[in-house]
Order: sequence, then C-alpha cells, then structure tokens
Amino acid sequence: MTATTPPVSDRQRQVEDELVQTVLASFRETPDARLKELMQAMVRHLHAFIREVRLTETEWQQAIDFLTAAGHITTDRRQEFVLLSDVLGASMQTINVNHEATAGATEATVVGPFFVEDSPEIPIGGDMAAGAPGEPCWVEGTVTDTHGNPVPGARLEVWEADEDGLYDVQYADGHLAGRAHLFTDDEGDYTFWGLTPTPYPIPHDGPVGALLDKTGRSPLRASHLHFMVTAPGLRTLVTHIFVEGDSLLASDAVFGVKESLVRRFERQAPGTPTPDGRDLAGKSWSRVRFDIVLPVPHDR
Amino acid sequence: MTATTPPVSDRQRQVEDELVQTVLASFRETPDARLKELMQAMVRHLHAFIREVRLTETEWQQAIDFLTAAGHITTDRRQEFVLLSDVLGASMQTINVNHEATAGATEATVVGPFFVEDSPEIPIGGDMAAGAPGEPCWVEGTVTDTHGNPVPGARLEVWEADEDGLYDVQYADGHLAGRAHLFTDDEGDYTFWGLTPTPYPIPHDGPVGALLDKTGRSPLRASHLHFMVTAPGLRTLVTHIFVEGDSLLASDAVFGVKESLVRRFERQAPGTPTPDGRDLAGKSWSRVRFDIVLPVPHDR
Repeated sequence: MTATTPPVSDRQRQVEDELVQTVLASFRETPDARLKELMQAMVRHLHAFIREVRLTETEWQQAIDFLTAAGHITTDRRQEFVLLSDVLGASMQTINVNHEATAGATEATVVGPFFVEDSPEIPIGGDMAAGAPGEPCWVEGTVTDTHGNPVPGARLEVWEADEDGLYDVQYADGHLAGRAHLFTDDEGDYTFWGLTPTPYPIPHDGPVGALLDKTGRSPLRASHLHFMVTAPGLRTLVTHIFVEGDSLLASDAVFGVKESLVRRFERQAPGTPTPDGRDLAGKSWSRVRFDIVLPVPHDR
Repeated sequence: MTATTPPVSDRQRQVEDELVQTVLASFRETPDARLKELMQAMVRHLHAFIREVRLTETEWQQAIDFLTAAGHITTDRRQEFVLLSDVLGASMQTINVNHEATAGATEATVVGPFFVEDSPEIPIGGDMAAGAPGEPCWVEGTVTDTHGNPVPGARLEVWEADEDGLYDVQYADGHLAGRAHLFTDDEGDYTFWGLTPTPYPIPHDGPVGALLDKTGRSPLRASHLHFMVTAPGLRTLVTHIFVEGDSLLASDAVFGVKESLVRRFERQAPGTPTPDGRDLAGKSWSRVRFDIVLPVPHDR
C-alpha cells in the first residue's frame, strides 16, 4: 500500500475477508487433495496481492490484456508464458524448490523455452554446432554420481544459441543446429565440439519484452551452454554453464546464474592445435571442462 | 505445505530468500512508481505461493499449459482470462477494493465478459429483449445520488442472457438482443421491458470449465440482469440484480451475489394487464423495481 492510500475501514476489511473465505470454501469439494491445496493457496496469495496493492479496475484490465496478448503470441515455437515465468524468477524458484542443493551435486538452473525433443545424436567428440555460426568450443568432462562413481551411458542433451544470439528453432526454416545428444563412455567421460557461448536477448518483441522495457530491465541473458543429463537410477539434472568474466552474470534476465555453474572458457589463439586434431582453418577456439555430479535419489 | 513435505533446511531457505531479493531488486529502476509497486508485490506473492506449496516442475508445466490453452481459446468474443479471474473471485475482489461500500449507495458487482460497447438505444419503456426468447419482465426504478437528489439523464446500460442461457454475442450471427441503453427522465425515473432472468452456466467448454469440473464446482451463475449506470459527476456503477428465491444465490460461480442486490421479481399470471398496456398475447410476465443510488465522489 502506498502512503497515499486511504486506510481500509473495519467494515470494508470484513467484506474483503468474507469474499476470500467464500472463494476458499468453493474449492472444498475438490476430489484431488493436492489440487485443492494448490487452488486454495493460489486464491489466498492472489487475493492478498489484490488487497495489498488496492488493484484498480484499469490495472486489472491491463493484466487481462497482457495475458491475452501473451496467449496470442504463443505458438509451438514461441512460449511467452514461459518467458513471463522466467523474468519473474518463478521458473528459477520452481527449480530451487525441486532441486534442493544436494551436497556435492551439480546445481540445476532453468530449462528455458528452447529445449526440443528429438535432437540429433552425435558420437563422443562429435560436433553439435552442425554449421551454426560461432567460435568452436571443445567441451569435456566426466559424469559421476554423488557417491563418486563414474556414470557410463549417461545421456547428455546439449543446446545453445549461435553467435547471432539465435537458437535453431528461432529460424523459420526448421533446421536443427546447436543442439544434440550424446552418451558418456565406459569411464563416464564425454567430449564434444560446440560454440563458445555469447550473450543474447530473450525474445522481447512481445508483451514480456514490453514489460522489461517499462521496468527498466534488460532482456539480455548471460552467455551459457545448456545441459540436460539423465541416467537410470539418478535424478535428472537440467543446468547451464556460464562464462567466467561475462559482464551479464549479475543481471541475467531470467535469474539463472549460480556461482557454482560459472566456468573458465580458455581462449585458444588461431592455429593452436586442437585436442582431437580437428582442422579449424586458422580460426580461434576455446575449451572448457565441466565435470557433472548427479544426485543419487534421497541423498540431501 | 502438506504434512508429508520434508522440512526446508536453513541453507535451502536462504537460497530461496536470496532469489526473491534478487528478483525484487531487478525492478528497482522501474521509472513508474506504481508499476514498480505492482511488480514487486506480485513477485513477493508469486514466490511465496511457489515456496509454500513446493510447486513441482510438472505442476509448473501444467500452469503454463493452462495459460496457453486459455490464451488460444480467447478471441474478441470469448475471454477466458476474465472467466479465470471471475471463478477465482479475483474480479469480485477487485470490485470490492474499488467500490468500498458508500453509505446508502447501491453496491457494485462484476462486469462479466458479455458487456459490449455500442448497444442500441431504446426509449423509456422500450424493449431491450429485441426478440431474445424468454418471459417478459417490466423493470422500473429511479436513479438518485447519495445526497437524495434524482439524477435525470443518467445512462443505463442493461444486458442479460436469454432463456436458453445465452447472450447475443454467444450466437454466431452477430445480432444484438437482450442488450440496450436508455436514459432516465427529468425525475430520474426509468422503465423498460427485459426478460425474467434465468440461471445459466458460464462458458465451460474451455480450460476454466475443466478446472471447475476437476474441483467439483458448478459453472452455473445465479439468475441476474446486468446494469451499468453512468451520470456526469457521479461514480459509475456496474452491478446486477438477482432473483429472490433463486437456489443458486449461495453458489454463484463468479461470487457476484450481494444480499443488497437481490430483488423480488413478482410473477404475473397470463393475461394480467401490463403497466403500459403492452399486449403479451396471453403470456405470463414479471415485474421488478430497482432503485439505484449513485455515490457522490469522495462520500464514504
């Protein structure tokens, strides 16, 4: 409530309280106990918000219009509600709630709107860039579990934007690039070629972009490379690695940065020999190591 | 939090608290002070909800899918986000917050999704049903202000569903019926012919309908007739009148019922002479009186 809001009378408070109780009671017969809990909690927080800010009818209409615009711009390839959840930190808080830091395990972060099923498989050492423009980056690491055992056959999904700041699915032509999956070897090791991550804006030509603009926020994400790591019997990890020294680490538009996920990408001068002898025709490249530790379920 | 949820560790609580603070800080530079207040309050309540219920990633995805479906079913003639706000009591709470009961003034209720601009004008005593099926209803009353002065020239917008439970805009043919506007006479009096209100379900073939179904709630609204009353220098009133004895008064799907808005609709046997001599060809009809008191601004 702002300083200029008149105080709410006892009678008015009672009218508002009674409505909250009536709405809560309307969900009393919900057969599913969890759904009932979710709906009643949502009602309590939603009404508390409306009452606290003394939401005006114009503001209510603006909220309806915002949601309508978000719905209309959303397609199979553009998810404005995920963006909204991301820029409000709701996605990251949901990740936090579901991935309590397990001692020694790699931390999780947001999945983002650009993961797609059915990425191409590459062999160990393969190139996930598949022609996407950018500086080549050699990525290597080992997947272990929180008991210290290497995890052979872990599936790594990796995806990232190209140096123009775009994921393959943001191009109209439907090609796949900058995304792949591969499996760790018998020692739990993996290597692949990707691209040195570069910063990019989240899609900001829609209502979420307008919101960021009106609130003086940048749509830029800190440079990152996405990972989703799955292995039988272990908890799935969805995360990124970030680039040490990136000036956007402290102002990531979707609040995805965690200190433990920042990695040094070692820049290699043009002509520096590559680990696997790949000929980069005199281009510069980088290399990074990302050792991944998957939580054994029920460890905390 | 359910009884089975494990307790949140201090370290975990700190991680979650820090994220809330980071998101709040991201709105620090919002130029418009009110927008900043709204966004920061929304972030606090949204994160409190996620943390309290320990929202799962599956539930988060279901929320995204729900909003997406609501967006995709919404058109110029179907507003699923307003329905959602209505069935959560958020519309009614917004009305409450903005229309604190003014001593002696007629109470407000929800506008609903079926108001449209550009209704036809009818004279005093005219027929707003315009062919919509249903039992004729003679509506009469006087508009005064909270100082007791009659309000000549007040504009009354009136709209209602037909006996099949549908508003004109729910038919595909674009005809206007069951909606009109008229003006009070020099004494502030008005009369018109409408239809005896009947109960009807809110549109429930979309995601909001599915939500009502899953939570054991009925989509039925108590029978009502909508009014929007405007007059220069007075606060606009958006309200309904409800039908005394309607069994749905206590379970209105959108929480719009207020005791003070329930009116006796006097049923007239077939053949009973009408107030203006209109020949109803032997049909039954009803009559109701609704005196409207508009608040003088700044009265409380």
